Amino acid sequence: MDLLTVSLGPRSYPIRFGHSLRVEVKAEVQTAQREGRTLALVTDRQVAAVQADLLRDMFGDVPRLVLDPGESTKSLEALGRVLDFMAEHRLDRGSILVAVGGGVIGDLAGFAAAVYLRGIAFWQVPTTLLAMVDSSVGGKTGINLKAGKNLVGSFHQPARVMVATEVLQTLPAREFAAGMAEVIKCGLLGDAPLFADLERAPVTVRSADLAMIIRRCCAAKARVVEADEFERAKEGGRALLNLGHTFGHAIEQVTAYRRYLHGEAVAIGLVAAAQLSAALGMIPDDDVSRIRAVIAAHGLPVALAAPLPWPELLAAMSRDKKVRAGKLRFVVLETIGRAVTRDDVDPELVAAAFASVGAERG
Amino acid sequence: MDLLTVSLGPRSYPIRFGHSLRVEVKAEVQTAQREGRTLALVTDRQVAAVQADLLRDMFGDVPRLVLDPGESTKSLEALGRVLDFMAEHRLDRGSILVAVGGGVIGDLAGFAAAVYLRGIAFWQVPTTLLAMVDSSVGGKTGINLKAGKNLVGSFHQPARVMVATEVLQTLPAREFAAGMAEVIKCGLLGDAPLFADLERAPVTVRSADLAMIIRRCCAAKARVVEADEFERAKEGGRALLNLGHTFGHAIEQVTAYRRYLHGEAVAIGLVAAAQLSAALGMIPDDDVSRIRAVIAAHGLPVALAAPLPWPELLAAMSRDKKVRAGKLRFVVLETIGRAVTRDDVDPELVAAAFASVGAERG
Repeated sequence: MDLLTVSLGPRSYPIRFGHSLRVEVKAEVQTAQREGRTLALVTDRQVAAVQADLLRDMFGDVPRLVLDPGESTKSLEALGRVLDFMAEHRLDRGSILVAVGGGVIGDLAGFAAAVYLRGIAFWQVPTTLLAMVDSSVGGKTGINLKAGKNLVGSFHQPARVMVATEVLQTLPAREFAAGMAEVIKCGLLGDAPLFADLERAPVTVRSADLAMIIRRCCAAKARVVEADEFERAKEGGRALLNLGHTFGHAIEQVTAYRRYLHGEAVAIGLVAAAQLSAALGMIPDDDVSRIRAVIAAHGLPVALAAPLPWPELLAAMSRDKKVRAGKLRFVVLETIGRAVTRDDVDPELVAAAFASVGAERG
Repeated sequence: MDLLTVSLGPRSYPIRFGHSLRVEVKAEVQTAQREGRTLALVTDRQVAAVQADLLRDMFGDVPRLVLDPGESTKSLEALGRVLDFMAEHRLDRGSILVAVGGGVIGDLAGFAAAVYLRGIAFWQVPTTLLAMVDSSVGGKTGINLKAGKNLVGSFHQPARVMVATEVLQTLPAREFAAGMAEVIKCGLLGDAPLFADLERAPVTVRSADLAMIIRRCCAAKARVVEADEFERAKEGGRALLNLGHTFGHAIEQVTAYRRYLHGEAVAIGLVAAAQLSAALGMIPDDDVSRIRAVIAAHGLPVALAAPLPWPELLAAMSRDKKVRAGKLRFVVLETIGRAVTRDDVDPELVAAAFASVGAERG
């Protein structure tokens, strides 16, 4: 039960879940080293400080590159630093790049591993709840351009992922809650019993079943990714993982990524997506209330703290890179636990859904 | 006959061969534009000057980025410029990036297309003989690091390649000859009749059958790539395309990429590989003479202009990224028209083969 295999043919890989995993990861490292494989590690300054013990116990004297924390590290310049670091330590096609950190480090190091020698192995030790549920499954790696986030990247599956929940003890409560937004999303789009469990008792960093909750979320995501690894499905498929995200990304963009954490914007987006689903007659209003309640119970916002202008939100949604041939695409709920994509949504209903979470009336 | 399909399942694509192709490419561009697809073009200053007419006839007012010519453009910095250019022109997942140029532009733009939005379509109009035979088939894209050439990249197949031999009229003779080294290699490793034709009459830029010669070379290469798209074969496979290249890369590295063009180093490497094959008892000495004669007849060197130190050549070969578990790997000829990989080559024989083309005695 502490192992989940993401089944992607030759790119299949295991995710291991547990509280500590120090012994297990150390053993994996030693096995790789015995096989003559060179390892190198990328992390950020904050993780290196807070998780110094864990890094030493898991990775011993594996050479490490310590980058600045924060989104600005998802840059072409930082990519160059990682690649030069890999070359300096003479990583070859049999080597392994390890990422220990949150989404920024995982996305950046994963991309570096994807393109160094046209692709080498990549291990991930996520240190935030968001990274555990969001980057463990999917294989999306990448960096930002000045023109926008995640505009550059590769699909590159990790060779293994180690989810050690002990690292979450030091995570700020606000960041833990932000990660829970993605867990709630997993329940909504693919695991009704998971949603029911979250409804019964909110998950906290002290929940005994935290690792198993994360595992269920990863499993729900894996089922979606396994069916559409490269996001080519004309409907449904990986796009379903964007439940709440078309709204959420618009909120993030219009607030210049400053006002809300990604998970907070997604939380508000999930409420808007539920409202839209109800307006389309797909779910009863009562389900919207249940969704709102679960989100609030996890310390997340269910509406904007201050109104945002509708024209800017609409413009941001139209720039979304998932837009196809100019049509706005939404993920909506057929029922709690089952999502579908819809391309034919009346813009009036979108405006109304956004207004219901506090946007200016469109 | 003017079309070759490289068969790679969903990544299959056509290569069109002809003298001019201006009308054909213009039609393709207009079709894409009618479908609402955005195009953008990357080239270098020299091509933009020499092929101004061709660029206008083929691509009209498609926005273009003009980079410095030369190997230094295969950098992370230039990659950033291409990616920013793509974002500036709002290329989306349905857009097409066109590369018009030699290997540097093709490798760089192909890599940019591979990673922008995790991969968009890429068209190639090669303007050197080397790029026509080397980059049209294989899908290898990438850039250099300070630590070495082609250390970073992706496999990304073009959506179409247009080989218009008229552009070779302005190519310096030395560069044309360097491209012929790869054509000769194609014959040696996979097309004995092609080699026989080259033996009968050397190919020049005025040869009536130039486009068809290039087509045969691409076809030989395509057969190899189709069987091993991602270079994973344990023996044979794409490694066969490195015939002459382990020697050639060592020559280039030891001379700091200044003394020989890539094709010239490969030409000398082909002679060394032939010598090695003869020393292994695989081909008769007479075949080595035939190979040397064909190479010389195409205006290419068959030996080093000045001796190079054996220890440096050996060190360079050991750094080759195709090295597996520290073993030197060579491609040798079973017969003219058929190559195989060998992992068990006596280093003495390698030293002797290198000495036969003018290296210092190992």
